[in-house]
Amino acid sequence: MPNHSIVELIRRKRDNGELTGDEVAWIIAAFTSGEVKKYQMSALLMAIVWRGMTDGELSAWTDAMLHSGEVLDLSAVPMPKIDKHSTGGVGDKVSIPLAPIVAACGVAVPMMSGRGLGHTGGTLDKLESIPGFSPFVPPAQFVPGLTEHQLVLAGQTETLVPADKAIYALRDASGTVPSIPLISSSIMSKKLSEDLDGLVLDVKVGKGAFMKSVAEATELAETMAAIGKRHGTPTVAHLTAMDQPLGNKIGNTLEIEESLDILRGGGPADMIEITRTLAVEMLVLSGIARDADAAFSMYRRVVSTGAALAKFRDVVEEQGGDPAIVDGTRPLADAPHRHTLRARSDGFVRDCDALAIGMAVVRLGGGRVAAEDVVDPTVGVVLAAKVGDEVAEGDELATIHYSTPDQLASALPLLEQAWATVPHPVEAPPLLISRISGR
Amino acid sequence: MPNHSIVELIRRKRDNGELTGDEVAWIIAAFTSGEVKKYQMSALLMAIVWRGMTDGELSAWTDAMLHSGEVLDLSAVPMPKIDKHSTGGVGDKVSIPLAPIVAACGVAVPMMSGRGLGHTGGTLDKLESIPGFSPFVPPAQFVPGLTEHQLVLAGQTETLVPADKAIYALRDASGTVPSIPLISSSIMSKKLSEDLDGLVLDVKVGKGAFMKSVAEATELAETMAAIGKRHGTPTVAHLTAMDQPLGNKIGNTLEIEESLDILRGGGPADMIEITRTLAVEMLVLSGIARDADAAFSMYRRVVSTGAALAKFRDVVEEQGGDPAIVDGTRPLADAPHRHTLRARSDGFVRDCDALAIGMAVVRLGGGRVAAEDVVDPTVGVVLAAKVGDEVAEGDELATIHYSTPDQLASALPLLEQAWATVPHPVEAPPLLISRISGR
Repeated sequence: MPNHSIVELIRRKRDNGELTGDEVAWIIAAFTSGEVKKYQMSALLMAIVWRGMTDGELSAWTDAMLHSGEVLDLSAVPMPKIDKHSTGGVGDKVSIPLAPIVAACGVAVPMMSGRGLGHTGGTLDKLESIPGFSPFVPPAQFVPGLTEHQLVLAGQTETLVPADKAIYALRDASGTVPSIPLISSSIMSKKLSEDLDGLVLDVKVGKGAFMKSVAEATELAETMAAIGKRHGTPTVAHLTAMDQPLGNKIGNTLEIEESLDILRGGGPADMIEITRTLAVEMLVLSGIARDADAAFSMYRRVVSTGAALAKFRDVVEEQGGDPAIVDGTRPLADAPHRHTLRARSDGFVRDCDALAIGMAVVRLGGGRVAAEDVVDPTVGVVLAAKVGDEVAEGDELATIHYSTPDQLASALPLLEQAWATVPHPVEAPPLLISRISGR
Repeated sequence: MPNHSIVELIRRKRDNGELTGDEVAWIIAAFTSGEVKKYQMSALLMAIVWRGMTDGELSAWTDAMLHSGEVLDLSAVPMPKIDKHSTGGVGDKVSIPLAPIVAACGVAVPMMSGRGLGHTGGTLDKLESIPGFSPFVPPAQFVPGLTEHQLVLAGQTETLVPADKAIYALRDASGTVPSIPLISSSIMSKKLSEDLDGLVLDVKVGKGAFMKSVAEATELAETMAAIGKRHGTPTVAHLTAMDQPLGNKIGNTLEIEESLDILRGGGPADMIEITRTLAVEMLVLSGIARDADAAFSMYRRVVSTGAALAKFRDVVEEQGGDPAIVDGTRPLADAPHRHTLRARSDGFVRDCDALAIGMAVVRLGGGRVAAEDVVDPTVGVVLAAKVGDEVAEGDELATIHYSTPDQLASALPLLEQAWATVPHPVEAPPLLISRISGR
């Protein structure tokens, strides 16, 4: 690779010029090797926040990150490989039932997920609340695991996309997080390193999401879909509402419970709607279902026959988790105390604030403020009233599962302001906002 | 000082918010102490390149830099203290005759100057070409030196404005140099650390200057004048042309020769015009001259009586330099070889490119590409034809003083393209473009 002057490249980006694919590849490689310094990368990142990236730069940046470390080779897996990624929200445990449902239909799902930070939970934290379960699946285990079970439930592997990890930490410490191209390339480099045949994205929008407006969520979805398309990986994104939490249970063990409800054919309507929509998308994208109707039938069959639940049980057991949790013969750990939050007047719920509830769960000890924080898996909130519901004064709004009175006292002020009721009926807003395709 | 979150402050600047004076002071102090990391500062610097600074931020930033180290206290010097700063050009040796002329009139001039980098020369390099001369004047020597001679000819002292040195190095390595507020605060923090009663700025504009257009030079001059005014230091800026070199001699010993010509009442007209204009400005600003006419008379007197030359002789001798150089009884070292550049056709000189000639002197060994480069004081270029001059084919355009054939070969292509002639007469452009006052 030829040598470049990083200062000259920063200047060009600063002055709204374009970097070539070779230059972008050199920047990522030289940053990974230490030749480009952190203070040069952070200045470049701020210039990217300012100027954005062209399609060519973005593809090159994503590709360079993707190749900064090991890349999975799943060509030996005989099934189509499809994964799903959510940009993160409150109560969003969709991946946990979705992955075994789709795997039970014959699609290989090389799921790699992360931990929660701030108000959004992480799939990994939720899975780890199953006693014994280990998300540490080495890259070499993916092919046999997927071939046998069509599913692995892995954490991010250190050896995959190391540049993303380093750049993300630098962005976090240098005020250069909010950039659609940087967010897109971070997500897409990790997902594309899974050697997928297709990808479904759930882009959350609203109070409890990183994208607060439909406009910016649309831009993010379109940018990620375009990266997928240029990379040759068909990518479909759904924009879904995240003003109120998804489902009724928020907290790690509580979300495993609700995930098992979905796998058993129950669970709240909003969880079912998103899980089913994304499953249909994955099944069609894989080619295993010829159309949405066929995909929907497959979904119903693997849930009603228990095939999806059995798939989840097998993989949990394979990865060291206690299958009795999935069977329901052993309960998940629960927090020692409960507190009931009640409506202070009659009315209809207009707001059930996902951000406030997500932050309250962090204060209960169920999430992280910093990456090194230890999570209490048992705490959380179970919602009894969501947007559109009619409540009378004194009715239960939610039950708080907590471990210490201090944590409850810290979380309560957020929760007490999370609900707003109005005297007139409120219509629940649509959950599915739009669909963006990068096939 | 209260604690602040640097990431929060970077985000605010990035999103076009304003930082308070306390926050700016904290940033500079925390960067100097290492609490704010280089990669955070460089991201903030890029956000400043992007968003600019408000007047309040700029004053606070300059003031915080100024107080990052030792500040001179010249209150014991009984004369008014005035300095001059040039933003840098080719052949700009004005400070060298100007300072002793003004000092001979009774103004104290605490001159602190820097070394050359790139195509622009540095006053310090020129002074150091006088055998024995030392620019290392410790801060404690300023009061006695100024009281006795009204003049010190010092290099930048390490203990003054250390934050500027650190921030400048970071800007240079992170592509964050071209920002009017950052350039202004860098210059003004150094000048204001001299405890001045007034400051005259020579803002160069044109091919051989950092500011290529009158618009950006005007913005820089106005920004610096406003910083001076808010700080309580009357500041006047002149925009002057730097499309062709100033004077006829470029190179370190050559520029000392031309400076001595000016002090003796001779020298090229453009050098005389700028030296006299800035001297009049300094004398009026000091209050020593009641108006420009009185200042002009003082200028003529100290030059014609030899008082200015004697002042220079005394201070050079005081700082270890050989006074025989000033007396003209010992010549400055000269380069071993000369080469004459000749006109290739009849015509009138339309261009005599300051940037090309400045870079040619660097290639001859007379300037620096990197800060650690060693300078050959003897090499340089003596101009025989400048813009507006009529030349015949074969006439001398310039004489090149060089040390090695390799250096000559490297410099010649630049010099051969530096002159452009046209068949019709050309009017020499005005030297003085505008005057901006921040009194």
